Amino acid sequence: MAMAKEPDEKEIESINNYWMAANYLSLGMLYLRDNPLLEAPLSPDHLKPRLLGHWGSDPGQNFVWAHANRLIKRHDLSAIYISGPGHGAPASLANGYLEGTYSELYPDRSQDREGMKTLFRRFSHPGGVGSHCTPETPGSINEGGELGYSLSHAFGAAFDNPDLLVVAVVGDGEAETGPMATSWHSNKFLNPRQDGAVLPVLHLNGYKIANPTILSRISREEIKSLFEGYGYVPHFVEGDDPLPMHRLMARTMEKCLSEIRTIQKKARESDRPERGRWPMIVLRTPKGWTAPKELDGHKIEGSFRAHQVPILDAATNPAHLKILEDWFRSYRPQDHFDKNGTLRAELRELAPKGPRRMSANPVANGGLLRIPLRLPDFRDYQVPVPRPGGVVDQNTLRMGQFLRDVMKMNPGKFRVFGPDETASNHLQALYEATGKAWMAETLPEDADGTFLSPTGHVMEMLSEHTLEGWLEGYLLTGRHGLINTYEAFVHIIDSMVNQHAKWLEKSRGDVSWRAPVSSLNILLSSTVWRQDHNGFTHQDPGFLDVLTNKSPKVVRIYLPPDANCLLSVTDHCLRSTDYVNAIVADKQPHLQFLDMESAIRHCTLGIGLWEWASSDGGEDPDVVMASAGDIVTLESLAATAILRELFPDIRIRFVNVVDLFRLVPQSEHPHGFSDRDFDSLFTVDRPIIFNFHGYPWLIHKLTYRRTNHRNLHVRGYKEQGSINTPLQLAIENQIDRFSLAIDAIDRIPRLQSKGAHAKEWLKGQIIDHLRFAREQGMDRPEIEAFRWPFPK
Amino acid sequence: MAMAKEPDEKEIESINNYWMAANYLSLGMLYLRDNPLLEAPLSPDHLKPRLLGHWGSDPGQNFVWAHANRLIKRHDLSAIYISGPGHGAPASLANGYLEGTYSELYPDRSQDREGMKTLFRRFSHPGGVGSHCTPETPGSINEGGELGYSLSHAFGAAFDNPDLLVVAVVGDGEAETGPMATSWHSNKFLNPRQDGAVLPVLHLNGYKIANPTILSRISREEIKSLFEGYGYVPHFVEGDDPLPMHRLMARTMEKCLSEIRTIQKKARESDRPERGRWPMIVLRTPKGWTAPKELDGHKIEGSFRAHQVPILDAATNPAHLKILEDWFRSYRPQDHFDKNGTLRAELRELAPKGPRRMSANPVANGGLLRIPLRLPDFRDYQVPVPRPGGVVDQNTLRMGQFLRDVMKMNPGKFRVFGPDETASNHLQALYEATGKAWMAETLPEDADGTFLSPTGHVMEMLSEHTLEGWLEGYLLTGRHGLINTYEAFVHIIDSMVNQHAKWLEKSRGDVSWRAPVSSLNILLSSTVWRQDHNGFTHQDPGFLDVLTNKSPKVVRIYLPPDANCLLSVTDHCLRSTDYVNAIVADKQPHLQFLDMESAIRHCTLGIGLWEWASSDGGEDPDVVMASAGDIVTLESLAATAILRELFPDIRIRFVNVVDLFRLVPQSEHPHGFSDRDFDSLFTVDRPIIFNFHGYPWLIHKLTYRRTNHRNLHVRGYKEQGSINTPLQLAIENQIDRFSLAIDAIDRIPRLQSKGAHAKEWLKGQIIDHLRFAREQGMDRPEIEAFRWPFPK
Repeated sequence: MAMAKEPDEKEIESINNYWMAANYLSLGMLYLRDNPLLEAPLSPDHLKPRLLGHWGSDPGQNFVWAHANRLIKRHDLSAIYISGPGHGAPASLANGYLEGTYSELYPDRSQDREGMKTLFRRFSHPGGVGSHCTPETPGSINEGGELGYSLSHAFGAAFDNPDLLVVAVVGDGEAETGPMATSWHSNKFLNPRQDGAVLPVLHLNGYKIANPTILSRISREEIKSLFEGYGYVPHFVEGDDPLPMHRLMARTMEKCLSEIRTIQKKARESDRPERGRWPMIVLRTPKGWTAPKELDGHKIEGSFRAHQVPILDAATNPAHLKILEDWFRSYRPQDHFDKNGTLRAELRELAPKGPRRMSANPVANGGLLRIPLRLPDFRDYQVPVPRPGGVVDQNTLRMGQFLRDVMKMNPGKFRVFGPDETASNHLQALYEATGKAWMAETLPEDADGTFLSPTGHVMEMLSEHTLEGWLEGYLLTGRHGLINTYEAFVHIIDSMVNQHAKWLEKSRGDVSWRAPVSSLNILLSSTVWRQDHNGFTHQDPGFLDVLTNKSPKVVRIYLPPDANCLLSVTDHCLRSTDYVNAIVADKQPHLQFLDMESAIRHCTLGIGLWEWASSDGGEDPDVVMASAGDIVTLESLAATAILRELFPDIRIRFVNVVDLFRLVPQSEHPHGFSDRDFDSLFTVDRPIIFNFHGYPWLIHKLTYRRTNHRNLHVRGYKEQGSINTPLQLAIENQIDRFSLAIDAIDRIPRLQSKGAHAKEWLKGQIIDHLRFAREQGMDRPEIEAFRWPFPK
Repeated sequence: MAMAKEPDEKEIESINNYWMAANYLSLGMLYLRDNPLLEAPLSPDHLKPRLLGHWGSDPGQNFVWAHANRLIKRHDLSAIYISGPGHGAPASLANGYLEGTYSELYPDRSQDREGMKTLFRRFSHPGGVGSHCTPETPGSINEGGELGYSLSHAFGAAFDNPDLLVVAVVGDGEAETGPMATSWHSNKFLNPRQDGAVLPVLHLNGYKIANPTILSRISREEIKSLFEGYGYVPHFVEGDDPLPMHRLMARTMEKCLSEIRTIQKKARESDRPERGRWPMIVLRTPKGWTAPKELDGHKIEGSFRAHQVPILDAATNPAHLKILEDWFRSYRPQDHFDKNGTLRAELRELAPKGPRRMSANPVANGGLLRIPLRLPDFRDYQVPVPRPGGVVDQNTLRMGQFLRDVMKMNPGKFRVFGPDETASNHLQALYEATGKAWMAETLPEDADGTFLSPTGHVMEMLSEHTLEGWLEGYLLTGRHGLINTYEAFVHIIDSMVNQHAKWLEKSRGDVSWRAPVSSLNILLSSTVWRQDHNGFTHQDPGFLDVLTNKSPKVVRIYLPPDANCLLSVTDHCLRSTDYVNAIVADKQPHLQFLDMESAIRHCTLGIGLWEWASSDGGEDPDVVMASAGDIVTLESLAATAILRELFPDIRIRFVNVVDLFRLVPQSEHPHGFSDRDFDSLFTVDRPIIFNFHGYPWLIHKLTYRRTNHRNLHVRGYKEQGSINTPLQLAIENQIDRFSLAIDAIDRIPRLQSKGAHAKEWLKGQIIDHLRFAREQGMDRPEIEAFRWPFPK
């Protein structure tokens, strides 16, 4: 390790020049469409007709980037930069440009006058690049359009990357968000022996859009206590005078690295690594640092007025144009760029080279580093199913056994995430392969059943936000994972998943240099239909509705009906890239329907006619009974059995849907079924009783263009629930076997008259079963132990 | 103020007895269906056949409740209790029962043997009460099914309630959630002069379902620093020996109250109130405190194994039955309940009386205290609209003027919440009536435009979670409010709104003693269609999809097309109770269409034919042009103008939808239109070109049962966006005037042949306008300045 020497004045001056060059470029992006080097006096013609973008955090972020570069150069570090503050893209873009990466990826933004002009013009211009660190931004894995996830992304990147330093700039605006406020605790899950380091830089910029920030308006003692309480050693870098600030920052960065190295060295020389008290930096600078002090008597630098474009009327107000020009020239562009517009050689020397550049580190284009998972044969975990409905098994338990061996075969590149529910969701076989990550204190009794371990690759914390952020960071840096969570509470991360889906959509579509990353796999368990004591709050299958609004290029939804299907689907999802895969699977014991070969065929097709459950001989059914979801499939099958018992000559076709997007027309989603295939399966004129896991309207949303939509009758969850037994809840929402049988009778013309008696009997069954449940607090054993075919 | 005297030993013993009685009841709820007083030896017959519920946090919460009672009695306090830890209902129910409230509200749960048996039986029993503090729980305003909101609810209750003490127990599991982690900062918004006090009790129970908690496994110094950093004075109450713990807790509660009183006194005697360093308590007790130490060699008390029902096989394992019976008897029920099962008089004396009981404080049944808002006449804020499309105005600006006067007329009972965007959303007129709540440090320059004020009733913090939690707490305690937020990022609180809707649904339906509370009003602004520099991340109108999945009893969605409609809708929403009202309104300048009287008629009907924009003479249209949303209505009208220009004899009917649920059949939603009315408006056989603000499929989901659904063609946002001008974005998603005109031509049979030329012209327009936008970075002035009727 190089010694932490005091930077000499010449070096400080160079860094300051580099910083001014970056600030100049950031400001140019906001304002200029021409005269990029200010070779001519600034005139209104040079200004963009519409001024869009944000100045506020740019100079502070350029400052951090410059000093991170110094550290990387001096210590030959592999580092990436996370830009947390909103709208900070000008800083990341400026630095990517100064480092040459931007020109390599976008040759029209070359290292000369024309390239600089294009850089400026394309910023916040229609069809150009955004003011957030979008996928188009080299070196970015955190867009920051929606705030709060920079630190969880940073830790996700650091896990299993022992040589990586993640410099994570946290805005004091985003620091007010909940997800950010708890993600500071990520340090209790980072093992200095196996993982890299995160250096958080809290940027106390002072202001948001129109308000001061909370953390900038509490005492220094409170800030210090807060971050010590979070488990960090805070280092303060405060001021507004550039040269002393550079000196202080250079010293502080060295000090932080030295503390990081000490923690890592100690842990790596020990076989019992301890949690580090990691350093973090509190960087307090004026908002919009180096902007004009004031304009028309209003404070600009150090005020919320520096948040966006501080001078808006320069094109029409000559005095303001002059102020703007002075501001531009205060950065002395001619001193930093030669007459062609190329950064001068002595400044270029300050940036790292090749992949050491934070804008070019392949870690931040993780698909480049991604190695597909080594996967055991998922068939090895199958449930033998001698005949459909012949055995009971736990679907997620089998999935857990598969995941256990995936974990074993892929040390250091696969993690499973869950909010304290991985065992509750019956994935506990994982603990035969790994523990739960834990670097906080332990007690002797932990040995009895908590599975805590510093090397654990199951990540449990009661924060869906942090888990999702970690997983996204882990995936975007080239690794693999899966999150399992409570179906109802996955809504907590609706917005994060939306944003990740949008990131993937752009990465696939417009950003050819981004290599595909592993899909975001989400297992939704503890589903709506089994909430015996949790009740109404735990019943919400609406995440699927949210997902179906995202681009069909990137979203996939699977509802495997049994264990073998779940295994097949899991294998498929773990191999895939650039998707959000939602898998819905209950954790309770379930009837098993398909042997492994049938399951593979069924999942490959994604939708299928189950001949063994049908009685239409392949043609001309009275009714199509369809289902998508495990519990609803059981009820649908039971209804079919009842109907066949009641009407021995009834012709039923049974269709099951695993891949929900099969329902959508081919033109709308790549998984969509052709109309011909759809019609041949669902008929063009027979009643369809569709039992759906989620909200019933979703099926109508997906199928409204289909020929036979008018005969489609969907049952699903409709917000009817409280403390209920499974059958009660099913009955309340009419997804139960009896209600479905009544639905079918009502819709089969030839049963209209002779079905009356049967319907009475079915209604009687409903009443009897409800009474039993109310009185006994549970369902009748035969309801739970239903076997196919329905016993006489 | 009574002096904080040391509790004497007799008092401590009484409190301990009261606590044991509550623990006994909590345990009884988990286990017993008979023999409630354990008068007979415990036998398997007495046990519930299915054991559901959670023991973990109950004894700790009973402990807090007992000591809060002591404080209330000694100081005649008005206090409410917030139960944060998950599944803690047995504690709240036990205390509600001991205080008599439960029997008053549910006479079958009387203060005797039979009542106690019913209390036990109904717990976690089908159709009974849940293991969370559901709306059925007296004194609860925080269900805690989904974790993380107890503290923001607590502060919401305390705002403008100067005499209230909110005892908020925070679980160390929920403390890991993001929303909780940032809500500690609520103390920067609480004014000790005008607001009440929150006493947070962080319950360091040690464990979640299967893991230790983070905060229980960091050093005491870190905990202390963390909460000092959050701005509190932490007081530690730690131990497991009941009597010393009671002494310590009694002293600590007195000390905390004294600190609260000191802060309040100082602030109330000053006209410049300062932020208090409020006390909080760190209560460290074993999880499942007083449970058996171990079972079969596994630790129970003080372990995650005490989370749910610690002994599950007592019915079949005689040794375990004995352990369970000993556990029950360790609370000495006969000492606390007389032979009828009634709490002994000397213990009853420990509880406050009447509305001083935390289970009966009307603050926690806020509808009882709710006084309707005094509302100015919203007509006074109208935009004069001499002819449709004749003027441009800013819809939310007018709304802000109305809200300003609502604020003025309702001091101390109306607040507006927003994540740093209230002015950005053009509601800045509010600052003529009030400031932004702020108790953190201020600087002289704040006087220039930040509007910070200790008495401010606009609440801004960059945490949608905290804002939503505050608002919910404020509403549930009988006050009024509105949250305004970025449309795309309202997904951050999808799950909170879901949970609040479920709370309202249960309160309206099953809990007759809960009085109606003011509706949760959500203004979605900065909408998908105006994201010129924010781009793709800021485009998501899918919150409406989430809302439509909730019970039709409680959700309402409004898309007012102009300022007068927005005023009418706002007035309506502010008067309503027990709904979640979503209002979608863009903040940019817009054409105004309806004068005030027309707007009122239009909003009252919720959907209407705009004759002034139609050319079908009221019958037999070629096409129905329909819209829901402000920007899409403009485009639809422009399309109509273009079509009429191109085809002077075209018969167009123009329909606008304000109240989205009008589209749904009457049987599905109380606002639903009858089929007859729907058919007469939309025809039964003419093409409908429906331009929708949100994702287009939502309209299909709402209308798939309508007669003319097969001819319904919906345009809306379909995830096509980046950095775009408004028209570009509209074109990408085909909601623009030109694309809509093409859609209409394609669907009007008599235009099939003669429309070809027009379509070419329209496509040319699209290309021209796109080119202009790409080159100039903005739309053509005539696009922005479109006036109705379309100029020749």
